[in-house]
Amino acid sequence: MIHIRDAAPEDVPAILSLIRALAEFEKQPDAVVATEADLLRDGWGPQKRFSCRLAELDGAVVGFALWFYNYSTWEGRAGLYLEDLYVSPEARGRGLGERMIVDLAQIAVREGLRRLDLSVLDWNPARDFYHRLGLQHRSDWQLYRITGEALAALAAKAE
Amino acid sequence: MIHIRDAAPEDVPAILSLIRALAEFEKQPDAVVATEADLLRDGWGPQKRFSCRLAELDGAVVGFALWFYNYSTWEGRAGLYLEDLYVSPEARGRGLGERMIVDLAQIAVREGLRRLDLSVLDWNPARDFYHRLGLQHRSDWQLYRITGEALAALAAKAE
Repeated sequence: MIHIRDAAPEDVPAILSLIRALAEFEKQPDAVVATEADLLRDGWGPQKRFSCRLAELDGAVVGFALWFYNYSTWEGRAGLYLEDLYVSPEARGRGLGERMIVDLAQIAVREGLRRLDLSVLDWNPARDFYHRLGLQHRSDWQLYRITGEALAALAAKAE
Repeated sequence: MIHIRDAAPEDVPAILSLIRALAEFEKQPDAVVATEADLLRDGWGPQKRFSCRLAELDGAVVGFALWFYNYSTWEGRAGLYLEDLYVSPEARGRGLGERMIVDLAQIAVREGLRRLDLSVLDWNPARDFYHRLGLQHRSDWQLYRITGEALAALAAKAE
């Protein structure tokens, strides 16, 4: 009834729908500019930038977990960074989210990755879910970002 | 006098020394279990897991910036995640840190990456430095991690 599997190129439309649904949940419905061509190139092209696992319920795709390799210079090993995890509202309450996290932990162990990392919005109830599964809040670390025109301006800075 | 360049396999001992120096600065001197063989495998092996740029002052390696590709499902593009940036104390005050960040921004622009991300400890004065260069604190995002025995236990969880 529940089945977790690798995503394939023909799943890209379903993945993009789930990405859009997650962006809506995160109150940024217009933030998704990614196209099917982008995901196809970056998930299955010569420069693979992410991996994706899908959750099926009775044969229908109802959730996704998209991740990539990060790196720990202290461990001298790659880690698994979970960028997106999402289960459709109609499929919740059946343990699919937990099944997907356990599946990712198994991938990490199998590939010799030393950690599973992710980021959560501070109002997202999923924080309790992650905490219950044993993930620790790294409260002393703060995220910084530069993007768009500010990034271009930084790159153009005279030496 | 100042030169920024790609790291090469023969730089691995210098990189590991700088990684250890950064761990000491971050008050975790014993956290570095990485070996030269680890860095060689992950930086120059068949599965490349990171890239590294070095700062030279008068021909001596005095700083490093180690990064990898992350991924934005909203942008449908990879980004540049800066894992470590470090300049030796004796070489500070000459703008090497800024030169290295500008260099990374140029790599990002050249490769079509849409963002430059990093994490900083909440007591690290480097936060002011990053803010001055235009990076924004993403204060609504919280980092979570599972590692070691907890990760193994999660992977072994019965379905």
